[in-house]
Amino acid sequence: MIKIGVVGYGKLGKSVGAGVEEASDMELVGYFSRREIKDNPKVISIDKIRDYKEEIDVLVLCTSSDHDIESQGPDLIRDFNTVDSFDNHSKIYDYYNKMDTIARENNTLALISTGWDPGLFSIIRTYSEAILPSAQTYTFWGKGVSQGHSSAVRSLDGVKEACQYTVPNEDLIKDIRQGEKVQYTKENAHKREVYVVAEDGFDKDTIEENIKNMPDYFKEYDTEVHFISQDDFDKNHRGQEHGGRVIRAGDTYGSTRSVVEFSLDLESNPDFTAAVDIAYARAIYRLKKEGQKGAKTVLDIPPLYLSILEKDYLLKNII
Amino acid sequence: MIKIGVVGYGKLGKSVGAGVEEASDMELVGYFSRREIKDNPKVISIDKIRDYKEEIDVLVLCTSSDHDIESQGPDLIRDFNTVDSFDNHSKIYDYYNKMDTIARENNTLALISTGWDPGLFSIIRTYSEAILPSAQTYTFWGKGVSQGHSSAVRSLDGVKEACQYTVPNEDLIKDIRQGEKVQYTKENAHKREVYVVAEDGFDKDTIEENIKNMPDYFKEYDTEVHFISQDDFDKNHRGQEHGGRVIRAGDTYGSTRSVVEFSLDLESNPDFTAAVDIAYARAIYRLKKEGQKGAKTVLDIPPLYLSILEKDYLLKNII
Repeated sequence: MIKIGVVGYGKLGKSVGAGVEEASDMELVGYFSRREIKDNPKVISIDKIRDYKEEIDVLVLCTSSDHDIESQGPDLIRDFNTVDSFDNHSKIYDYYNKMDTIARENNTLALISTGWDPGLFSIIRTYSEAILPSAQTYTFWGKGVSQGHSSAVRSLDGVKEACQYTVPNEDLIKDIRQGEKVQYTKENAHKREVYVVAEDGFDKDTIEENIKNMPDYFKEYDTEVHFISQDDFDKNHRGQEHGGRVIRAGDTYGSTRSVVEFSLDLESNPDFTAAVDIAYARAIYRLKKEGQKGAKTVLDIPPLYLSILEKDYLLKNII
Repeated sequence: MIKIGVVGYGKLGKSVGAGVEEASDMELVGYFSRREIKDNPKVISIDKIRDYKEEIDVLVLCTSSDHDIESQGPDLIRDFNTVDSFDNHSKIYDYYNKMDTIARENNTLALISTGWDPGLFSIIRTYSEAILPSAQTYTFWGKGVSQGHSSAVRSLDGVKEACQYTVPNEDLIKDIRQGEKVQYTKENAHKREVYVVAEDGFDKDTIEENIKNMPDYFKEYDTEVHFISQDDFDKNHRGQEHGGRVIRAGDTYGSTRSVVEFSLDLESNPDFTAAVDIAYARAIYRLKKEGQKGAKTVLDIPPLYLSILEKDYLLKNII
């Protein structure tokens, strides 16, 4: 049995813990949290994590990419093998190098930035680029809930609750599939729909204007704002669905056309991300047994290492 | 530059050769064929292939899975590193073991059974099974031309030309995406459309009956037969388009639903298969440089090895 520790007891952490308890080759040592959680005896203080060093094969880091993983990863990799979903694309290169150096010094193994994007989408972008070097890659997100955008809206004055859906431009997707030349930008490929419960006494037009003018988040996008009741919000906008697609389309060698497409439709973003983390925790456990060390990405790991199935079975039934 | 030899000068062989000539890190040593081809000086007699042993880094086997590769692979792997698209699923396990043994004895490296199915579809089936162990995998082929089925029809009395399209059941695909429980069999998931040019003096009803009653190929399927003129055939049914999709759908750990889907839409089946072979030839070249030997499948090879891009670039831009 592979012994798994989970750092963090938020949505992702809980999904990883629940998944590990279901996985037939794993057992959950516990969750490590800064918060004191009285209703779950499996939640242990993060301050005690080093007492569990010998009991944990792989630690899955489920805290925030924005605030925590960048500092927690380099600290924990000194004593543990880790898997994380660090998803700040612009910092992945530096994070990888930092984790690689420390892991090599300490003879540990880190799998960084897995999940679905970065993660499975990175894998598809890499395979499809290698196979179709002259084609173009397009990534679309949604329709789904963006936690980052939702919490950006919640930070505004007068906003009681907010949920932001990223909606892909279906016409653009259709054009790409049909081989038309398109102008793709992240901004024209997505629309943003925001559902807001306003606090009493605030002007809705002002709130709407403030949302639509937030740079990076909304200003560059076609944004719709809908004001709804708390009741409507609770009933219809508390989901965690997400998804998206990677399309690579264009010329094969020669001049025939190929379209490669990979898509995800997920009822729960944290549950699916957790499921990817769990498969990579298995891979890291195996690579560690082989004596490997340092930082790895999803691009460094053969598909075989993720599967619980024996190679003979895969050769006979899956290939 | 990676020096590539191509065995076979049929559709796939020509596509591989043309692709290698376009690939910026490769050069084509030549095609090796049993046939004498006067109009292309790059076509060399297969009997002379061992004279080129020192000049070839990787040999791509592009002859028939039904008749040739099973004997050619084990012979050529004694002296060359090889990539092949051996696609007889029921024999892959035995073929792998045979190639592995001989390659290890001779310190060579073989990548077997790549392409899109087996190949990319095998990769997606493996990843998605590892991530969603309780879900179900469904593979659909088409709409596209099946060479095997077309030539089975051509072998019948009274058939001058024939083209067979494998057509996936779109209703079943829709149901799977929507999370409905379905009964999937290869037979109910596909329909077969056959376009036939009949020879003069043969009874069309008899030909149609003979097609529809061919076991394994048509008997178990919903099959439509259309008789058309030679002119219509030449104009509309000489394409090599194909494609298909792998869907894995069902419960994530916990009970939320996930749907993973990978699809290909290809104007030319041989061109795309060639493009996959070329990317794996690059991988085999690199693995050989690292001192590896034996047989490999697509499941053994990290995505990174296929790409011409540097790891730093991938970390900064693709992940």
